[in-house]
Amino acid sequence: MNEQIVRAFAPATVANLATGLDVLGLAIDGPGDVVTARRVPGTGVRITAVTGDGGHLPTDVDRNTAGIAATATLCRAGVEAGVALTLEKGLPLGSGLGGSAASAAAAAFAVNRLVGSPLRKGQLVEPCLEAEAVVSGCHADNVAPSLLGGLILVRSLNPLDLIRLPIPEGLAMAVVSPEFEIETRAAREVLPDQVPLSAMIQNTANIAGLVAACFSGDVSLLGRCIADDVVTPARTALIPGCDEVIRAALDHGALGSSISGSGPAVFALCRSRRSAREVAEAMKRAFEEAGLQSKAIVSPADCPGVRER
Amino acid sequence: MNEQIVRAFAPATVANLATGLDVLGLAIDGPGDVVTARRVPGTGVRITAVTGDGGHLPTDVDRNTAGIAATATLCRAGVEAGVALTLEKGLPLGSGLGGSAASAAAAAFAVNRLVGSPLRKGQLVEPCLEAEAVVSGCHADNVAPSLLGGLILVRSLNPLDLIRLPIPEGLAMAVVSPEFEIETRAAREVLPDQVPLSAMIQNTANIAGLVAACFSGDVSLLGRCIADDVVTPARTALIPGCDEVIRAALDHGALGSSISGSGPAVFALCRSRRSAREVAEAMKRAFEEAGLQSKAIVSPADCPGVRER
Repeated sequence: MNEQIVRAFAPATVANLATGLDVLGLAIDGPGDVVTARRVPGTGVRITAVTGDGGHLPTDVDRNTAGIAATATLCRAGVEAGVALTLEKGLPLGSGLGGSAASAAAAAFAVNRLVGSPLRKGQLVEPCLEAEAVVSGCHADNVAPSLLGGLILVRSLNPLDLIRLPIPEGLAMAVVSPEFEIETRAAREVLPDQVPLSAMIQNTANIAGLVAACFSGDVSLLGRCIADDVVTPARTALIPGCDEVIRAALDHGALGSSISGSGPAVFALCRSRRSAREVAEAMKRAFEEAGLQSKAIVSPADCPGVRER
Repeated sequence: MNEQIVRAFAPATVANLATGLDVLGLAIDGPGDVVTARRVPGTGVRITAVTGDGGHLPTDVDRNTAGIAATATLCRAGVEAGVALTLEKGLPLGSGLGGSAASAAAAAFAVNRLVGSPLRKGQLVEPCLEAEAVVSGCHADNVAPSLLGGLILVRSLNPLDLIRLPIPEGLAMAVVSPEFEIETRAAREVLPDQVPLSAMIQNTANIAGLVAACFSGDVSLLGRCIADDVVTPARTALIPGCDEVIRAALDHGALGSSISGSGPAVFALCRSRRSAREVAEAMKRAFEEAGLQSKAIVSPADCPGVRER
């Protein structure tokens, strides 16, 4: 018998990792979004409450990623059901931590489970992509890791081709999120339409090295490959103190550091949790010097995706 | 005691593999260049004979990659010696098989061995790069595999950062070289200075997938990742029948196929030597239909680099 209520948690994610715009994303442990799905009479999805968003998110089911993903999940599963959703935003809006993707992932997972799990987790990526497309463009670098956990390479969207990359043991992430909001659309608008061929060559070299490092466990190489001259400089300009925060992370022993997704959060990949704690403090101080208060997350680099809670 | 004569063979190489312009190259088994180095009185390098080049290559030591690499090797080793080189070109000029790199690799290896091997093989890459820079631009995607064998990722030139990628067992290469010459410089001039951001994203996704496939042994994925919308279309236009040759390779079971280096040779990655033989025949027929005679090489995908012969 199908459950009458399911509550699901989907984690924050760090997309891009500097060199992998739209193609790399990693789940982290810490705050996330929670969606509760209840069976109700009739058919169709509705959103009955959104909390933790400061009143900024629409409850209109077609404009909220939780609603869009829930509807698309039922559609893909070929199930007609009445579902009421509540969304508890644990992730700040416009932070670069994949909030819209986490809402979608939690909703898709909860609704799928509510109707008897007709779809596998991997099959929830496309419903979540539909949701992302409405609010921030068609990219899976947040939804895929928020659903599947770990570090995911999005090799292709059409057809969908996702590859799980191994994460060397013991690595940790420091992610520091300043009190400052960037709209994903704005962060995408600063990206150039065209990039120098030399920059493409450099990015292909770095992402290839990053993947090799994941498999071989060469964590120094992994850190060296977190580099990019295309996306990062364009977005750095939008975030007060960003260069200094990245510099502080590297000066305090981070393997690599860059902007998380479209920012303003900044991440640092570190050798250990202990190192990540120290790095996070240094990054917070650097944001403070730029006049921004911030919150730090210290997480293992290898974390699970969406799950029941 | 140092040897008085050393004869070295350096193999042909397939650079780029579609998605890795300037950053990926693979050694193949078959023809290559042979350099014989002899101790002579006095100091400095000279070239006493070049054969197999149809009289087209300079014997001027500063304009021939064998001469430049030999001189740079002695310089880097801090050795003063008199050396006479002969170069036997086994690789056709302007074929896209890394001929200039093979001459450099064979010369660097032979001269280093002649003076008692003061440098390791990996230290010969930079002397060979100097040679490549003079004739075809500064890129190591041919010299690195011609020296080191196997599949090499050139993550960075400055500082030099080379990564050996594993090659799934049993794979084979079919490489078909038409009787048609493209100057490397001309093939580089057709490349765009700027590429769409979307193309960069696609190339990073594909090279990341390719590297993952090398480590995981997923040969279908490896084939899917041999794809590129930037370099290949620009160069295809220079090579009669190129699209049809690639199509013939894929239709006959190749995992992936594209232009070798700057062309006109075309390679196909295949599941086995047997498959590669069949694919090579189909590719030759396709070139013939475009009016070009061609020669085929069938090789394991994992081959050694420069060696004494």
